[in-house]
Amino acid sequence: MEKNLRASELRALVRKKEWNKPTTGIAAGYVQANLVMLPKEEAFHFLLFCVRNPKPCPILDVLEPGQTEPRIAPGSDLRTDLPKYRVYEKRALRAEVDEVTQFFHQGMVSFLLGCSFSFENAMLASGLLVRNIEEGKNVSMYVTNIPCIPSGPFACPLVVSMRPMKPEQAVRAVQVTTRFHLTHGAPIHIGSPDEIGIKDLSRPDFGDPVTIHPGEVPLFWACGVTSTLAALSASLPLVITHAPGHMFVSDLKDEQMTLM
Amino acid sequence: MEKNLRASELRALVRKKEWNKPTTGIAAGYVQANLVMLPKEEAFHFLLFCVRNPKPCPILDVLEPGQTEPRIAPGSDLRTDLPKYRVYEKRALRAEVDEVTQFFHQGMVSFLLGCSFSFENAMLASGLLVRNIEEGKNVSMYVTNIPCIPSGPFACPLVVSMRPMKPEQAVRAVQVTTRFHLTHGAPIHIGSPDEIGIKDLSRPDFGDPVTIHPGEVPLFWACGVTSTLAALSASLPLVITHAPGHMFVSDLKDEQMTLM
Repeated sequence: MEKNLRASELRALVRKKEWNKPTTGIAAGYVQANLVMLPKEEAFHFLLFCVRNPKPCPILDVLEPGQTEPRIAPGSDLRTDLPKYRVYEKRALRAEVDEVTQFFHQGMVSFLLGCSFSFENAMLASGLLVRNIEEGKNVSMYVTNIPCIPSGPFACPLVVSMRPMKPEQAVRAVQVTTRFHLTHGAPIHIGSPDEIGIKDLSRPDFGDPVTIHPGEVPLFWACGVTSTLAALSASLPLVITHAPGHMFVSDLKDEQMTLM
Repeated sequence: MEKNLRASELRALVRKKEWNKPTTGIAAGYVQANLVMLPKEEAFHFLLFCVRNPKPCPILDVLEPGQTEPRIAPGSDLRTDLPKYRVYEKRALRAEVDEVTQFFHQGMVSFLLGCSFSFENAMLASGLLVRNIEEGKNVSMYVTNIPCIPSGPFACPLVVSMRPMKPEQAVRAVQVTTRFHLTHGAPIHIGSPDEIGIKDLSRPDFGDPVTIHPGEVPLFWACGVTSTLAALSASLPLVITHAPGHMFVSDLKDEQMTLM
C-alpha cells in the first residue's frame, strides 16, 4: 500500500510526523530528490557546480531565496515534508531533525537534485535485477579519484553508486539508464574499480556492501551524494540536507525525466 | 575553405580583426554559442533562468566572475574572439563593437548558450532540406505568447525559430533534433502559428522571411535569442551579447552535444 501512495499523500503523512522512515520503494513512480539548502551568497557558485557536474548533480528544481514550495510539488513545504534532515554548521553535523523550520531563513536557497531511484524502477520494469533491492540493502556508494569540476568554493571528488550485473545485463542497463539523463543517466564506468580509485568493493564509503556473483561486472553510476560532499566542501555557516535515504518525493513521474 | 577552418583558426582570424562577418556555415561541425555577459550580482538569477528554461537557453559553459577563457575553448578570450558584439546599458544599445576589452570588468560573468547551427548541420547530413540555408537567409524568428519561467528580475516570452517542412520530413526532423538536447532539442510546436501567438509567418520579429511551399507545415524550435531578451528584461547597468549571427565558435564538436 505504501508503495501505491500518491506523492502528495506521502508528503502529508511526513508533515504530520506519521512517516519518519526512508523513502526507498515508497510512492512508486514518483521522482525523488536530494535536498541541499545553503546561504544565497553562495547560491550562484553551487548552482554552477551542479551545471558543471550534471551527472552527479542533475537539477530538478531550484527555489528563489527564502522560498520553500518547489514548482515540482505544489502545496509542499521543503521545511517539513522530508522525513529526516541533517543540519551542518561549518561542515560539522549539528543536528538530525524531522523538520527544519527553526533553521531555515529568508537568506537560504533550496536545491532539489535527481536521485537514482527513478532509473532503478526502470531497470526493474525492464526485467533487470538490482542487487541492492533484491537483498533489501542500501546501494553501495564509493568516493572515487575522479575530481568534479570545481566552482568557487565548491570542490569534491565524484561519488558513485555500484550495481553488479552479468555482462549481457550490463548492456541493457546502459540502454535503460541512458534515457534517464535528468537522474544520473548512463554509467560513468564499467568494470575495474581500481581505475576509478576504489580499492575494495566490499567496503563502500556509504551504504551497504552487496553480493557480487562470479562472472558479474560492477557498473558505476554518478551518485547524488556528491551534492552533499560538494555543499560541505565549502565551510558555510549553515547547510541543510536530507538525511541519507530520506528523500523529498516530488509530483514528477519517472517517465517525465526521460528525453524520449 | 572557410567551411573547413578549425575553430581555433577561425578565432585567431577574428582576434586579428581579419574576420568580421557572421559565423553561419563557418568551421563546420564545431558548436557555436550565444554569448551573454552581465554583472555577477545577477549571475545566480540569470543562471537559474537558463536552468529553468533549458530549451531556449541550453548552457554550454559559464565562467567565474572576471574570467574570459571558457573551458570549451582553451586559449580563447571571450572579449576579443567574437566577430561582433552588442553592448547595452539599462536595456539601451550603447555600442556595436568588434571587441569588448574596454567594457568587460572583473565583476562580469559570461554565459555561453547553445545555438541551432548544431542541429541544422545534423538535419542537412540526414538529407533534410533547411529552407533558410537553401535560400541563403537568416532563419525566421518570432516572439511567441509562451512565457518563459521567470527568475528574479529576468522574465520574457519564448522566442522560436521556424523551418517549414513536408509532413514526412517533419517526423525525421523531430528525430534528428531530439538527439541535440544541449542545442535546443526537439521542436516545441508543429503547425498552427496562431496557437503560439504568431500572427503572420511572413513577418518574423528577427531574421528573414523564407518561402513556405504548399503542403508544408511550420516547425518551431526554441531559439537562443530568448537569452538576449531575458538578459535585457532586467534593467542592468551593463549587458554584453554577441551581435546576431556573429557567434562564439567553441572547440566542442556537434556530436558531443548528443545524448547518444
